[in-house]
Amino acid sequence: MTNIVWIKHASQLATLAQPSKGPRIKDDMNNISIIRDGSVWIEDGIIQAVGTTRQLEEQFKDRAHEAVITDAKGHLVTPGLVDPHTHVAYGGSREREFERRLQGATYMEIMNAGGGIHATTTMTREAKEEELVQQTKRRLDSFLQHGVTTVEGKSGYGLNLETELKQLRVMKRLQAEHPIDIIPTFMGAHAVPTEYKGREEEYVDYIINEMLPAVSNEKLAVFNDVFCEVGVFTPEQSERILEAGKKYGLIPKIHADEIEPYGGAELAAKVGAISAEHLLKASDEGIAAMAKAGTIACLLPATALFLREQAAEGRKMIDGGVPVAISTDCNPGSSPTTSMPLVMNLACISMRLTPSEALTAATYNAACAIQMEDKVGSIEPGKQGDIVLWDIANYQELQYLFGVNHVRSVWKKGVKVIDRS
Amino acid sequence: MTNIVWIKHASQLATLAQPSKGPRIKDDMNNISIIRDGSVWIEDGIIQAVGTTRQLEEQFKDRAHEAVITDAKGHLVTPGLVDPHTHVAYGGSREREFERRLQGATYMEIMNAGGGIHATTTMTREAKEEELVQQTKRRLDSFLQHGVTTVEGKSGYGLNLETELKQLRVMKRLQAEHPIDIIPTFMGAHAVPTEYKGREEEYVDYIINEMLPAVSNEKLAVFNDVFCEVGVFTPEQSERILEAGKKYGLIPKIHADEIEPYGGAELAAKVGAISAEHLLKASDEGIAAMAKAGTIACLLPATALFLREQAAEGRKMIDGGVPVAISTDCNPGSSPTTSMPLVMNLACISMRLTPSEALTAATYNAACAIQMEDKVGSIEPGKQGDIVLWDIANYQELQYLFGVNHVRSVWKKGVKVIDRS
Repeated sequence: MTNIVWIKHASQLATLAQPSKGPRIKDDMNNISIIRDGSVWIEDGIIQAVGTTRQLEEQFKDRAHEAVITDAKGHLVTPGLVDPHTHVAYGGSREREFERRLQGATYMEIMNAGGGIHATTTMTREAKEEELVQQTKRRLDSFLQHGVTTVEGKSGYGLNLETELKQLRVMKRLQAEHPIDIIPTFMGAHAVPTEYKGREEEYVDYIINEMLPAVSNEKLAVFNDVFCEVGVFTPEQSERILEAGKKYGLIPKIHADEIEPYGGAELAAKVGAISAEHLLKASDEGIAAMAKAGTIACLLPATALFLREQAAEGRKMIDGGVPVAISTDCNPGSSPTTSMPLVMNLACISMRLTPSEALTAATYNAACAIQMEDKVGSIEPGKQGDIVLWDIANYQELQYLFGVNHVRSVWKKGVKVIDRS
Repeated sequence: MTNIVWIKHASQLATLAQPSKGPRIKDDMNNISIIRDGSVWIEDGIIQAVGTTRQLEEQFKDRAHEAVITDAKGHLVTPGLVDPHTHVAYGGSREREFERRLQGATYMEIMNAGGGIHATTTMTREAKEEELVQQTKRRLDSFLQHGVTTVEGKSGYGLNLETELKQLRVMKRLQAEHPIDIIPTFMGAHAVPTEYKGREEEYVDYIINEMLPAVSNEKLAVFNDVFCEVGVFTPEQSERILEAGKKYGLIPKIHADEIEPYGGAELAAKVGAISAEHLLKASDEGIAAMAKAGTIACLLPATALFLREQAAEGRKMIDGGVPVAISTDCNPGSSPTTSMPLVMNLACISMRLTPSEALTAATYNAACAIQMEDKVGSIEPGKQGDIVLWDIANYQELQYLFGVNHVRSVWKKGVKVIDRS
């Protein structure tokens, strides 16, 4: 029997549909394609028709009785949100480190007490695969409650072959077991593990010669990400890792120019990265190079907030022709949040995106940043029935009434997975 | 029949109980009095016993069958949150103004198009009392969903006698009709209405000679608040209004030093205000005067975020001996949010409060800021059964896993009003 879902009477159905292909830039980021009194018809998880409620009533007048109907009652309906940058599959939690920092402990005191990224590496290495599945599942549940139906997830808390593979296998299992789509990125180059301190080039060789082939062999990743930053990996090391990954079909991403301007944005354009992340300190030349190459800027304003940094210059990047996506950066050190709604709010408040640009950055452009735009990110026939019904009347309120999770219902592939009505 | 609620097996029951009276300062703000495997026993809305689950099992072994039991299953339990500074009873919404601003409209363009505070004044004046009740009720519902069981609410969008009274009557009705306790503040001196432009002293006289007697006559307010700021009300005008209010038994509060240092903190100490609000630009002398007078600093970090301002120096104030409370400032212009959980997160992130200080600032000290500490703000026998069960294990996670509403269940006066389990 066909499983039919019909959502009708949305005050605003923001479809995000456009005739053009590829990530949206400039004014196209404001065009979220609103249908008033909108309706979506989903069959067996795939969107079949989109239009006004009157149009769909006419089109399906003989089949209305087959559908499970949700009356949106004058509320906003959007595509499921897409989070294109998370480190969601990590072990343990660091809330006590957060407290110690606020009690006055210095960064070095925390590190010397075994804190920081290496604490998470240790906890991720020690976690059994099943434990890691359960911890990650809880975070994915929270993402779903916040309207997120697709996430990217990175390895990078293993920093050895065994644990990097474990993280990626956990994500593969969750892709099968959890409603959320989880798109995997290999990030062996997230940090230099303590056992390789002073032998950074050897670690780069280890990534290239041992990790990449194994990851590729098991088909565990789509993307290959590097933390290109002063004191972590140099642009040269980053390029070497990313070019090596390309030989295995892994598409480059770069954590770029987060702490200092370091040529990361320029490198992203040069190696043909699908996206560059953070970009708080990206140079004007780097931004121009990204615009020219069509590299997506994946901006992380919740991280900037948590670290008390000035957010990336999202307004300037959009005006300069860079396609912008936004993300939680969900991770235990610099952004322990799962709230894409807050990230959209911060995109407006801290980066001066308009409410519609923020929605594009969290849906269609985010999907482009993980090459999922043929399946998710907009409400169009043929795409997955990934839909959010919000408890508000319009997309402006979504950004204006900030800090509140306005999600009412969420459908993933046509199945209602969250219902707070 | 007695209505009995028993919440047991909290991993951490943060009671906030202390032997001392009055708002907490310095290290006492960190002492949130945690009971491991904690239990609370509530009869007819009033807390009767607090202790470990084992203690209460012994104490009530003959009466356990009378209770409706909630097993907290190893989650955090705290007092209901208290929001001591809101403008919740306003008419209309300004999300399109927010959008226009992000599209590049200047402050003056917005004002000339009828925007800003005067837009809300117009919409509040035009709203029928019943409409205002319904709009305010929706916001109170959202507060409750975020674990807030008591709010202060200000008038100040009427700016004429009729509408100021209407706002206060709306709050009086909601105190009777809505589960949340709403403590009313008269704030005729929120702005100078356009019809009094250039005749500010006449408006001050109008407040003193007509508004205050009427508000007092109907017993519609407990506090009297003034926006003491350059271009709004001078310290001299503010003092005149607050002293006049004292004659009617209205306790002073002051919106102080938000935009420029203007002696507001000093004035708060001088007139014996229960609290001073905002304080982003408070002088060192003002902070010292507040510490000496015991004036509570009511800090609003969500407002600072929304306005892209540096948050108030909460850390410095606590270290300087000022009792600190925190609040959403819920209002349509500078903080359209109802999320006290986010405000607690921001108190840690932006103002460097510790997780326990932030909880004290959002419960017990907030209750003190509205003189409700004998009834709410801590979990102690004799107080109202205002309780929040959170979907996390400890109070550190409450602040660390930021931007997420971790509320699972809320009891107001022993009645479960929110249940997401």
